Amino acid sequence: MTDDPVLLTGAGGRVGRAILQGIGADHEWRLLDRESIRLDRLPDAVADAERVIGDVTDEAAVRDAIRGVSAVIHLAGDPRPEAPWDSVVTNNIDGTQTVFAAAAAADIDRVAFASSNHAVGAYETADLTPGIYRPEDEFRLDGSELPRPSNLYGVSKAAGEALGRYYHDTEDLSVACVRIGNLTEGHPPRNYERGQAMWLSHRDCAHLFDRCLHADYGFEIVYGISANERRYYSIKRAREVLGYDPQDDSAEYHLDGTQKA
Amino acid sequence: MTDDPVLLTGAGGRVGRAILQGIGADHEWRLLDRESIRLDRLPDAVADAERVIGDVTDEAAVRDAIRGVSAVIHLAGDPRPEAPWDSVVTNNIDGTQTVFAAAAAADIDRVAFASSNHAVGAYETADLTPGIYRPEDEFRLDGSELPRPSNLYGVSKAAGEALGRYYHDTEDLSVACVRIGNLTEGHPPRNYERGQAMWLSHRDCAHLFDRCLHADYGFEIVYGISANERRYYSIKRAREVLGYDPQDDSAEYHLDGTQKA
Repeated sequence: MTDDPVLLTGAGGRVGRAILQGIGADHEWRLLDRESIRLDRLPDAVADAERVIGDVTDEAAVRDAIRGVSAVIHLAGDPRPEAPWDSVVTNNIDGTQTVFAAAAAADIDRVAFASSNHAVGAYETADLTPGIYRPEDEFRLDGSELPRPSNLYGVSKAAGEALGRYYHDTEDLSVACVRIGNLTEGHPPRNYERGQAMWLSHRDCAHLFDRCLHADYGFEIVYGISANERRYYSIKRAREVLGYDPQDDSAEYHLDGTQKA
Repeated sequence: MTDDPVLLTGAGGRVGRAILQGIGADHEWRLLDRESIRLDRLPDAVADAERVIGDVTDEAAVRDAIRGVSAVIHLAGDPRPEAPWDSVVTNNIDGTQTVFAAAAAADIDRVAFASSNHAVGAYETADLTPGIYRPEDEFRLDGSELPRPSNLYGVSKAAGEALGRYYHDTEDLSVACVRIGNLTEGHPPRNYERGQAMWLSHRDCAHLFDRCLHADYGFEIVYGISANERRYYSIKRAREVLGYDPQDDSAEYHLDGTQKA
């Protein structure tokens, strides 16, 4: 790592705030968001960080924002699972292509891309659920499986992963695609077995993206969840290749979200 | 199968012409292309078939064209491996979404989608080639592997496959994605080991899409190549699930394309 900043796209969103809360003080940052108001309420640790207002679908804005950075964490996009096609094809697919292309053109070494559990949500068929959400079940998705999106947002994330693979293979960019689970602050989702199975705590989220900035890898698809006993996503690859060492487990909480004694 | 027509998008392209040459007389057709001139020079067998001029990115045009068909073979898109992003995101990704969405809305049973070898072209790394193009080599891709596109056209085809998976899982549409190899008429590509390994003859192409119209399947990704001795794509799944029974093999030709005695 150099002292050049890390470009964080979509910095003002939920994932961006979790990352900055955890590792805001550990890196120099260039924070990109399309709405300035979202950059006004970030953690104190990045109070002095560079801020850029711009849209990832704007090639010139991305080209300017990427100049001189050491790495990119690309979170920007429409985050709604129910987002309509017109939005995800523009903000998520075209936006991600714009970021990867600019990173390759600027000779950036690595891009960590926020993919999603929705890229594989349709593996959760009626005959597998709710069994796979329970501790005793050994079903695991590990990132080597083909996409099975549960919505058009998930299709857009699968397309982003394919773009990442392409830019890795042809432009020698290191690309980590993190299929983010259910990110909540403080405690796992309440009374929601599935959400607890794919819980990602804020500190584990920040740590995982920190590993994406430090570890040595080529192209990876990993699951971004805490060390949940209930999990049906493997975190083996994230542990082995990225050195991910999650601290949290939804089993430390009751089903209603209160912490066990 | 009913007597309702099969909608063939991109009917005037190379793949469309190969299909119509082989099975033009076996189905009723609705032939869609965005250029009328391309529909004027189709095989005699479809001289009386219904013709529709329209672009697959035009939702209303696709909705009209899909009304009352028994199935869709979706070929339309920018076919150039070197096509720029702006074209493939519009014509191939958005166009394919438009076709799948219209098919689902119209309660069509099945869509066969022309994917491409370029969705996985980057598996052909420097250390594997040219070995995998040779008869004695046992390396096989079988359709269960993650995409590794060799260009942005290949990314667009991977995205189309993910869309097909989504529409299968959520709308109960039968979807066959055919990763078409190197389609040439009469003889395999000349003096090109790779092209001979993934040769798809015109008659095998027509037969394979015919099987996509008749066989019973849910979601499939199969390779569209002839029974080439040199192949590094498996045709096992196409044989087993679709009943594909290819007649051609590039080994029946010399490397220069002339037929062996």
